[in-house]
Amino acid sequence: MSDFTPPITPIENETVEMTDPETQSLIAASKVEGTAVYDESGEKLGTIHDVMIEKTSGKVAYAVLSFGGFLGLGSDYYPIPWSVLSYSTKEEGYVVAIQRDRFKGAPSYASAENSGWMEHGYTRRIDDYYGTAIARGR
Amino acid sequence: MSDFTPPITPIENETVEMTDPETQSLIAASKVEGTAVYDESGEKLGTIHDVMIEKTSGKVAYAVLSFGGFLGLGSDYYPIPWSVLSYSTKEEGYVVAIQRDRFKGAPSYASAENSGWMEHGYTRRIDDYYGTAIARGR
Repeated sequence: MSDFTPPITPIENETVEMTDPETQSLIAASKVEGTAVYDESGEKLGTIHDVMIEKTSGKVAYAVLSFGGFLGLGSDYYPIPWSVLSYSTKEEGYVVAIQRDRFKGAPSYASAENSGWMEHGYTRRIDDYYGTAIARGR
Repeated sequence: MSDFTPPITPIENETVEMTDPETQSLIAASKVEGTAVYDESGEKLGTIHDVMIEKTSGKVAYAVLSFGGFLGLGSDYYPIPWSVLSYSTKEEGYVVAIQRDRFKGAPSYASAENSGWMEHGYTRRIDDYYGTAIARGR
């Protein structure tokens, strides 16, 4: 996977996923889910399992990455601040300036049933871990 | 359905949907999908099929309502500005200040494959229809 090759058939991919709408400026949440996430070297880290929306502002605050055991880590779900993701049209996926080693020890959970979202201070832990606490004004 | 009775067992409902995380301030996109939408009299209009996220701002811009033939209208999917939805903890769903008759003639599509999202000016049509164009600064 380290020799990352950009997909050759982007138009075919678009056709397959047409059921989840996407325009130049908008994307369906259902299409975001399942989208690949790469590090900056083009290595695939995992996929987006879900996004967490702030009820009051309507802003997507966190993405939940699913590694599916790919990293050989114990947990499958890693919430990261939405702001650290950028979409790459070239790679047809999201890119994060985070290397895979950085996810060791990051806030995570093994199953959605045992997620940490209900814990006091969980979002602050995520923000602190990825250095986005200041950016989010906390 | 016009004699709307609030659910008596909110705690049981919560337990059933635990797999999609929700906190006081955050909700998973996968949990928003399928959530009921009521008018202000408490009548159920349909459910949220999907949400459309603005790629640049990360803001949820539109919700796609699914009526599932409930209204007896030809189309199943009605995109509405996210800003017209408010969440009601009492009704455990979203409430819109829109009556069902107002959806006749609203922008809509019969299937996701034939959605209008790719049409030029489609979002403006939605904003104009629900009177949110000015609020969105267009």
